[in-house]
Amino acid sequence: MSTKDQNPAANDEAEVRELIARWSKAVRDEDLEGIRADHDPAILMFDVPPPLLARGLDAYMATWKTFFDWSTRPVTFDFHDLEIAAGPDVAFATAIGRCCGTERDGKTTQFEFRLTTGFRKRHGRWCIVHEHHSVPATD
Amino acid sequence: MSTKDQNPAANDEAEVRELIARWSKAVRDEDLEGIRADHDPAILMFDVPPPLLARGLDAYMATWKTFFDWSTRPVTFDFHDLEIAAGPDVAFATAIGRCCGTERDGKTTQFEFRLTTGFRKRHGRWCIVHEHHSVPATD
Repeated sequence: MSTKDQNPAANDEAEVRELIARWSKAVRDEDLEGIRADHDPAILMFDVPPPLLARGLDAYMATWKTFFDWSTRPVTFDFHDLEIAAGPDVAFATAIGRCCGTERDGKTTQFEFRLTTGFRKRHGRWCIVHEHHSVPATD
Repeated sequence: MSTKDQNPAANDEAEVRELIARWSKAVRDEDLEGIRADHDPAILMFDVPPPLLARGLDAYMATWKTFFDWSTRPVTFDFHDLEIAAGPDVAFATAIGRCCGTERDGKTTQFEFRLTTGFRKRHGRWCIVHEHHSVPATD
């Protein structure tokens, strides 16, 4: 038994952490295949802008089209205060995100947002089944 | 072994479902002890109005003071499309909430919101360690 196998909970947490790092790097790189990877076909997305929800991988990817249409590259898209609760086949993570984008007219917008992500392990591999991105309501 | 014990995953899902039902009924009843029950001391709350986050049970209960100060009773606070992913000790749930409140001046506001809730089982009992309530951004 390797050292890695001796603590499955720590392994699961590390795998989820790596998945989030790959995904957020793919967003910064505008790497659409990388963003799509590790997502369940039935993913349920609650995004910052409307609509209320998006269901399924194609609808999920459409939310990223909205994002990349909003800002030219480079975008800031990183996280702090990441916390992970990982069981053997269900996990979730919370974090505070920092986003900064530049619109076509040069206007720069920076904001913090809340991220909750839900995971299931399928055939020994973690995948994202749910993302919830939001900012507090202003009105 | 009882019938109930033969499918622990179904038991866990049922327990999480019952917990959400108890909690949302406590909100409708403005039952502060009932709202507080089954929550972890270190709960992380991402609520609809500011602040960005609230950490700990007292800060969590302060978000409900904001809510009850906003609306006179009765409030509508119920959920549909509830989905639960439950492992043996970590679970999360998603749902669409319907909220309707009446301000002191008689103005009624109704809206839908997104809910994601994270759970851990502590000493054989599920508790909420995270709630994320939001509406899509309007600007």
